[in-house]
Amino acid sequence: MASIKDVAQRACVGVGTVSRMLNDSGYVAEETRKKIEVAMKELNYTPNELARNLYHKRTGIIAVLVPNVSNPFFSEFVDHAEAELYEAGFKMMLCNTVKERNAELEYLDMLNRHIVDGVITGVHSLDAKEYRKMHKPIVALDRFLGEHIPVVAVNHKEGGRLAAETLIHNGCKKILHFRGSTAIESPYLERHSEFERIMEEHQIETYSYELEWNRFDSGYYREAVEDVFSKGIDFDGVFAVDQLAIECMNETIRRHRKVPRDVKFVAYDGTFITEMVEPKMTAVVQPIEGLAKESVRLLSDLINGKEYKNKQVLLGVQLRKGNTTIV
Amino acid sequence: MASIKDVAQRACVGVGTVSRMLNDSGYVAEETRKKIEVAMKELNYTPNELARNLYHKRTGIIAVLVPNVSNPFFSEFVDHAEAELYEAGFKMMLCNTVKERNAELEYLDMLNRHIVDGVITGVHSLDAKEYRKMHKPIVALDRFLGEHIPVVAVNHKEGGRLAAETLIHNGCKKILHFRGSTAIESPYLERHSEFERIMEEHQIETYSYELEWNRFDSGYYREAVEDVFSKGIDFDGVFAVDQLAIECMNETIRRHRKVPRDVKFVAYDGTFITEMVEPKMTAVVQPIEGLAKESVRLLSDLINGKEYKNKQVLLGVQLRKGNTTIV
Repeated sequence: MASIKDVAQRACVGVGTVSRMLNDSGYVAEETRKKIEVAMKELNYTPNELARNLYHKRTGIIAVLVPNVSNPFFSEFVDHAEAELYEAGFKMMLCNTVKERNAELEYLDMLNRHIVDGVITGVHSLDAKEYRKMHKPIVALDRFLGEHIPVVAVNHKEGGRLAAETLIHNGCKKILHFRGSTAIESPYLERHSEFERIMEEHQIETYSYELEWNRFDSGYYREAVEDVFSKGIDFDGVFAVDQLAIECMNETIRRHRKVPRDVKFVAYDGTFITEMVEPKMTAVVQPIEGLAKESVRLLSDLINGKEYKNKQVLLGVQLRKGNTTIV
Repeated sequence: MASIKDVAQRACVGVGTVSRMLNDSGYVAEETRKKIEVAMKELNYTPNELARNLYHKRTGIIAVLVPNVSNPFFSEFVDHAEAELYEAGFKMMLCNTVKERNAELEYLDMLNRHIVDGVITGVHSLDAKEYRKMHKPIVALDRFLGEHIPVVAVNHKEGGRLAAETLIHNGCKKILHFRGSTAIESPYLERHSEFERIMEEHQIETYSYELEWNRFDSGYYREAVEDVFSKGIDFDGVFAVDQLAIECMNETIRRHRKVPRDVKFVAYDGTFITEMVEPKMTAVVQPIEGLAKESVRLLSDLINGKEYKNKQVLLGVQLRKGNTTIV
């Protein structure tokens, strides 16, 4: 393989000149440029990207960390994030941190080691204090990690309110509410507290089932549903994240109760799977593409030297009426 | 930021000595090592990963190309591939090529530019001749790309046979078969030809609906199902890929036909969504984790200098009985 030295020799110029041209880091006369180009062509020289990155201290790679890419919410997020990053000139390194407990730390370390230019983190496994130590381009999806790390999330309070009001308008009197773990500080907890606040305000009986921290797999969701049924909990309205709402609806139907006549369901996230089941689910829809767009926009800003303090971008949610509620 | 030069100066040794130690590329006396370590600590020196990669001509990054990561088959593949790569000491760069037509070429070019050490490609957008030009570590998922690129796939012929026999044993007389596009050379075409061969052998009427090339989104699947119903095609047995089988089943139920009594369904792939719908689908299950494992194993071999010619790894498939067939 030809080196930059070979190119310089062939073009009868100094190595520094070739380097200036490749890195666009100083004046190179037009005629000299042409000579270098010819030499590069003749020698079939490929500029070594690593060497150039070294010079620019940029790799053009962004790490995206999610707990589980086979969960539809995260697979849609990753899908859109990759497209947005590509558009902005970045490549995406993907890390699924659920399986490897130290991976989150390792990817943060890659920021220090100049392997990635930035991190978008949608995971909940590491103590936030590890993030507080870092002053590097990091954007958090749906989690508070310290005042210098911007957060992108939806307006979960609004989401909780929409779900609660829908079940109330549908006349539900006994609510089953699967709530996220309170083990971490996240904007998403607001949807649960707002949902419960409204139910309490209307004096509607609500059973809150707290999910384990950091579990997003269908196996776990099935266990949770079995647990609820084995406890003999009675309900006529359910609020849960997509996959869990679906598992719970299927079990309800298998137990010969009609949906929506006997039990109403409102799912949260509104990913494609809520439109794939019968009856189609009424859902509070998160604008996943918008979350990806905003995450990439903020991260690009940080990489370009902008600073954010206590920055939160909250996107709106919408209720999509399906056939698991009547009105 | 301290440089390797600063470290050398502080430790009173030559730059070459520090470099030998960092890269483990030659003898460095124990005492000297200690002096260098102390200097690195005092100067808070982080070895520059890029510089080391440059030296080793390895980045430890593998590109994985899929058409659409929000499709459950690919999201499960990516999930497992990331875990396997992590295990083997690699990071995964993910590319979703459906949206960006030139991305596939661009990622192959990254192999030439030493940004990635290898590519696992599960996409079908680029002409195979682009691959034939390359002699770099590439593994193909379910596609023939030339004799020097190993292929990992399932035994699709067996899969087609299992599906056909199941529908026959269930007494189906009018089959609707959604078949993949014949626009590209892929092992998966065998499942369709085997399925049709067996139906013909049993003189069972079969309507084959050829899907458009490179479309894996739910919107397209819904269109295809509407198209079939609008054409008034009559059927009592369906063979299709997961999402499409589900869309077709839902439409069948909405049109007041009973599943499995009036119409039987066999899905292909058997991802989590086939177990999430009611009735649960009978499916030919691809061992997605195994496909990821084998792809990573072959790629590691290629990176380590092994050569494969006309190598094909075929994994077995299994029929998982659900409630969309009776026997």
